Amino acid sequence: MTAIETVSEQLCFGGVQGFYRHRSEACACDMSFAVYTPPQAGDGTRLPVVTYLAGLTCTPETFTIKAGAQRVAAALGLVLVMPDTSPRVDLPGADHAYDFGSAASFYLDATQAPWAQHYRMESYLTSELPEIIAAHFPIDPRRRGIMGHSMGGHGALTLHLKHPQLYRSCSAFAPVVAPTQVPWGDKAFRGYLGDDRAAWARHDACELVKSGASEAEILIDQGEADQFLTRELQPERFEQAAEQAGQPYRLRRQPGYDHSYYFIQTFVEDHLRHHAQALGL
Amino acid sequence: MTAIETVSEQLCFGGVQGFYRHRSEACACDMSFAVYTPPQAGDGTRLPVVTYLAGLTCTPETFTIKAGAQRVAAALGLVLVMPDTSPRVDLPGADHAYDFGSAASFYLDATQAPWAQHYRMESYLTSELPEIIAAHFPIDPRRRGIMGHSMGGHGALTLHLKHPQLYRSCSAFAPVVAPTQVPWGDKAFRGYLGDDRAAWARHDACELVKSGASEAEILIDQGEADQFLTRELQPERFEQAAEQAGQPYRLRRQPGYDHSYYFIQTFVEDHLRHHAQALGL
Repeated sequence: MTAIETVSEQLCFGGVQGFYRHRSEACACDMSFAVYTPPQAGDGTRLPVVTYLAGLTCTPETFTIKAGAQRVAAALGLVLVMPDTSPRVDLPGADHAYDFGSAASFYLDATQAPWAQHYRMESYLTSELPEIIAAHFPIDPRRRGIMGHSMGGHGALTLHLKHPQLYRSCSAFAPVVAPTQVPWGDKAFRGYLGDDRAAWARHDACELVKSGASEAEILIDQGEADQFLTRELQPERFEQAAEQAGQPYRLRRQPGYDHSYYFIQTFVEDHLRHHAQALGL
Repeated sequence: MTAIETVSEQLCFGGVQGFYRHRSEACACDMSFAVYTPPQAGDGTRLPVVTYLAGLTCTPETFTIKAGAQRVAAALGLVLVMPDTSPRVDLPGADHAYDFGSAASFYLDATQAPWAQHYRMESYLTSELPEIIAAHFPIDPRRRGIMGHSMGGHGALTLHLKHPQLYRSCSAFAPVVAPTQVPWGDKAFRGYLGDDRAAWARHDACELVKSGASEAEILIDQGEADQFLTRELQPERFEQAAEQAGQPYRLRRQPGYDHSYYFIQTFVEDHLRHHAQALGL
């Protein structure tokens, strides 16, 4: 069993908000993550678990501090897992831009040097971290959901669509749905995956949805005052792809809301209830 | 009417989370504050308002981001006001320590140079800012409450006890209740008020409560795992003083909780409901 180090644990809504660190084999470096364990834990109970993938510039602390999610998780009996947004390694260029390198992994396995050695977030999130969580926290490995925001919404959609038996429920706030078609994704995929656009398609939710592998209804909230709406997000692309593929989904356009955690905290309860219902709580 | 500048406004739980700036006469400098205006505003409605005073090192953004209070304020129809924790002026020594100067005003009117010219937070919070809030936001000036955390709990208690007709309801998280008796208060009062301890007593909740001026029940939550409990907070001092003075109060000791916003977000709903009830919502 991989050892994890407890950085801190604090009581919150009767459960435990913890920060942890461990040596990651997938990423070949130390990785940090946060977990909220609700008060229903104990006596061998195995609870459903929802992993939240944050957006560009974020850390495991972002959602933990800003979303107000613990209250809902405590009420529903959900474990929450907040991974980091990238490996934290001192690679050349890793800290030159907010949208590439550190805190901007796009949750895929990079194939290009120097990123390929460490930026293996898909492997980390679909194999190593789930095993660590199952070994150290009171979760039911058959009831896992995934959600995210912006770049993390892209991560949640793609990891669910590629691994629907692992992450059985999915939702997203203001996700990047078509990274192969927008500037953020173009820059990241070029850097992490090289120029072969066929490889890019394997990390694009609008492409992946065509497989029909997911039977879950995907919930997406999108603020209509989001500053990235038309350039980076373009939810209508997912709408169209999901319609064509017969993918169940619910896209809610929220008038007046922007890209911030004031938007996320407003709707986080709906999302966690969506997961709780899908995971049989 | 004092002009205010809108720094930003974002939709949150159907209301508006705004950040504002203005020229303060009381503090002789620019001051920042945040306001949450719930969705019940409009059509001339005048809503009750609760001012939240934050603790050492904080800004108007701290409670705004970390407390999850907007959800409750939106449900109850409360306006929230988050002032800054001090003037922000470049005085010698203002940034030497986390517990004195910037972000550490202790919410009083300083009498000692160089602080006396700017550090006039009691005047600011009991006269200038309430007038600005009443002029620019849909509040009912007869229904104001005050709450705070740590140093801000001290501020809430003392400003309520000195001005019970202005701030009619009061609550605190882990407040400094006896600043004249503990290291944080000793350092701050010596710096802002000089060595005359008689002047100090006018800013000590345990002394002020003796006046019997407040008829409101004061709600205090104190985490029993708070790292500052025995050195800086000592809630039993307020308990004893309130008992002797016949001050209505409710001190809840919360096992396992620390000094952080994970503690605050757990109980913020109870506090806002306490104010809503006291203010006749």
